Amino acid sequence: MNNFQFYNPTRIVFGDGSIAKIKKLIPRKARVLMLYGGGSIKKNGVYLQVADALRKHDLFEFGGIEPNPDYATLMKAVKMVKKNKIDFLLAVGGGSVIDGAKFIAVAAHYQGEDPWDIVSQGLGSIIKKALPIGVVLTLPATGSEMNRNSVISHREKGEKASFGSEKVFPKFSVLDPKVTYSLPKEQIRNGLVDAYVHILEQYLTYPIGAEVQDRQAEGLLLAIHDIAERALQTDPPDYVARSNYMWVCTNALNHLIGVGVPQDWSTHGIGHSLTALYGLAHAESLAVVLPWLLWYKREQKQEKLLQLGYRVLDQKSQKYSERVDQTIEALAAFFHSLGMPTTLTAYGLDPDKVAEEVREHLERQDFVRGEHRDITAADAAEILRLSR
Amino acid sequence: MNNFQFYNPTRIVFGDGSIAKIKKLIPRKARVLMLYGGGSIKKNGVYLQVADALRKHDLFEFGGIEPNPDYATLMKAVKMVKKNKIDFLLAVGGGSVIDGAKFIAVAAHYQGEDPWDIVSQGLGSIIKKALPIGVVLTLPATGSEMNRNSVISHREKGEKASFGSEKVFPKFSVLDPKVTYSLPKEQIRNGLVDAYVHILEQYLTYPIGAEVQDRQAEGLLLAIHDIAERALQTDPPDYVARSNYMWVCTNALNHLIGVGVPQDWSTHGIGHSLTALYGLAHAESLAVVLPWLLWYKREQKQEKLLQLGYRVLDQKSQKYSERVDQTIEALAAFFHSLGMPTTLTAYGLDPDKVAEEVREHLERQDFVRGEHRDITAADAAEILRLSR
Repeated sequence: MNNFQFYNPTRIVFGDGSIAKIKKLIPRKARVLMLYGGGSIKKNGVYLQVADALRKHDLFEFGGIEPNPDYATLMKAVKMVKKNKIDFLLAVGGGSVIDGAKFIAVAAHYQGEDPWDIVSQGLGSIIKKALPIGVVLTLPATGSEMNRNSVISHREKGEKASFGSEKVFPKFSVLDPKVTYSLPKEQIRNGLVDAYVHILEQYLTYPIGAEVQDRQAEGLLLAIHDIAERALQTDPPDYVARSNYMWVCTNALNHLIGVGVPQDWSTHGIGHSLTALYGLAHAESLAVVLPWLLWYKREQKQEKLLQLGYRVLDQKSQKYSERVDQTIEALAAFFHSLGMPTTLTAYGLDPDKVAEEVREHLERQDFVRGEHRDITAADAAEILRLSR
Repeated sequence: MNNFQFYNPTRIVFGDGSIAKIKKLIPRKARVLMLYGGGSIKKNGVYLQVADALRKHDLFEFGGIEPNPDYATLMKAVKMVKKNKIDFLLAVGGGSVIDGAKFIAVAAHYQGEDPWDIVSQGLGSIIKKALPIGVVLTLPATGSEMNRNSVISHREKGEKASFGSEKVFPKFSVLDPKVTYSLPKEQIRNGLVDAYVHILEQYLTYPIGAEVQDRQAEGLLLAIHDIAERALQTDPPDYVARSNYMWVCTNALNHLIGVGVPQDWSTHGIGHSLTALYGLAHAESLAVVLPWLLWYKREQKQEKLLQLGYRVLDQKSQKYSERVDQTIEALAAFFHSLGMPTTLTAYGLDPDKVAEEVREHLERQDFVRGEHRDITAADAAEILRLSR
């Protein structure tokens, strides 16, 4: 096990009826800016629940934060923060709104010329101050509600990058499983796959004897297998399954299973290009990369693939030599069982053409990923060519 | 899954060489009181490492905190805190020293007449202020390094009780697996069993569909099975196994696996009496209670016992009706494999006599435990009678 630090001060307030509790979680005298996205919270009742809970607070609002939140949009919110002397941000939404809130929180206090530098130049570690953030989660998937990370896009520059800072951990995150009742099935499927891949990118690397982290990661994967089918039920939705769906997404990326172990975020790296170039949803992009990346790196990742197969995917075939391939197949089959395609061709895309375009896209970013820093733009192209 | 809050702001600094980092973790101007126990830290080099790291701090020390830390001892430390205007406590030790530090931290700020009231009257929830605590862990077992709980004894009154408060979470805990190298094998065995029982007391209750917490708990149990034998190696000690041993003990009781689920701390409750009356080490007391308690409550706990057997203890016998008993036997066999007895008779104690004495002891405390509040002093006696 490698040396590590673990720190996560976010307070989780979980369960049916929790949104009302934000009244006491946000200081009474705070000037609160409520951030949200495309307005689904006005249809599903969450907006009203928040407004009702905060009716005695000074409450401002800023809607329209788009998926893959854009620098230009967020800078408008920063302007509003300054103009109205906002001192508390309340993100009501999914990963994009929360990530956006994290950027606004540091940009509002940034002393340099352009807050984009925080993201593009990786200045997260030197951030001294940020506005406090609270979260009402509406779309379980990214884990942003309980971590220090944020991914921001700069459409004008054609860039997408991330930063991390202890200063942007949410002070609290309210997780009410009933907010998922109005989600389309597809978004729940996406959330489950996103969480599953988050776990694997912290787990499917070379083994260093971190049995605790391995078993914790496998436990979360097994929990997803346990509940996925029931979580996708919509008529009526299953509260217990939705609770587990919500809580497993948070646990998949709250830093705990990733401490002290090598990590490999290449599936996310390649997936980001597919989202940028072809508009695949984030989770969709992951599912068309991961199985092929694992097959491409199957020798290097053999030991952990065998462990995954044996402990999670019930691959215990007598023929040891077949187990790696069977594990990757079982993983793809699980995604299919959720209704999630695992090939580019399923989206009508030509793998050869995509491979070349993504290669160019990644070369411009000097893309290098993998726990051994050996997955380049050329490797990404080889991987995508297989996705058929 | 029940509604819950999860909050744990303790920073973990983990790995070989971590003790030196306390220099930067404790404010430079702090007046630090180093708390420790019987002096083993002077033999194994930890005392010197701490003193060296803090050679530029104002450092005071208070040694002699005994196992099951005593109110009278801790009040001496409180006096020293006040006299020397101490504003930071550094607990260097295991659960007793850390629990003691938590009591000192709140007692130093207590405005009432007698700080024992905090413990005896359960005033944890109203604590407003406590001295900040840092930890250098030397004996992995109790999890106190990353939780809000503290168990204190009052020998003069013949009482032992606990309190909990968010104010006593350690600010940081330094976990260097090499500090375990000087531990006698018996203490590592005790730590493993203590952690194992902590997990089971949050897990072996009636099922409420908390698959995430169940799988997390099972993952930690499996990790203990993975590493126990190697963790007990002393010549030479195995760094990787010791790292996992250390980290699993912390994860066993840092509140995460216990959120949103029923808990049953009756084994601890009965075990405390055995420690008080017969001097059994804490973990020893747990191991002579747990298997018999599970057998006594096997019908009520059947569903989770079957799950434990199937998922953790490899009990998949064709004969369903045998599986519960086999699971309990497998659990006891695991403790035996660590060199841990599971009967009172193994300690030369007469179960019938012990049963009567413990019954009286527990009756004086109005003992009621169990997730259904149905394990009384009389039940404890029945359970102990079986421990032969």
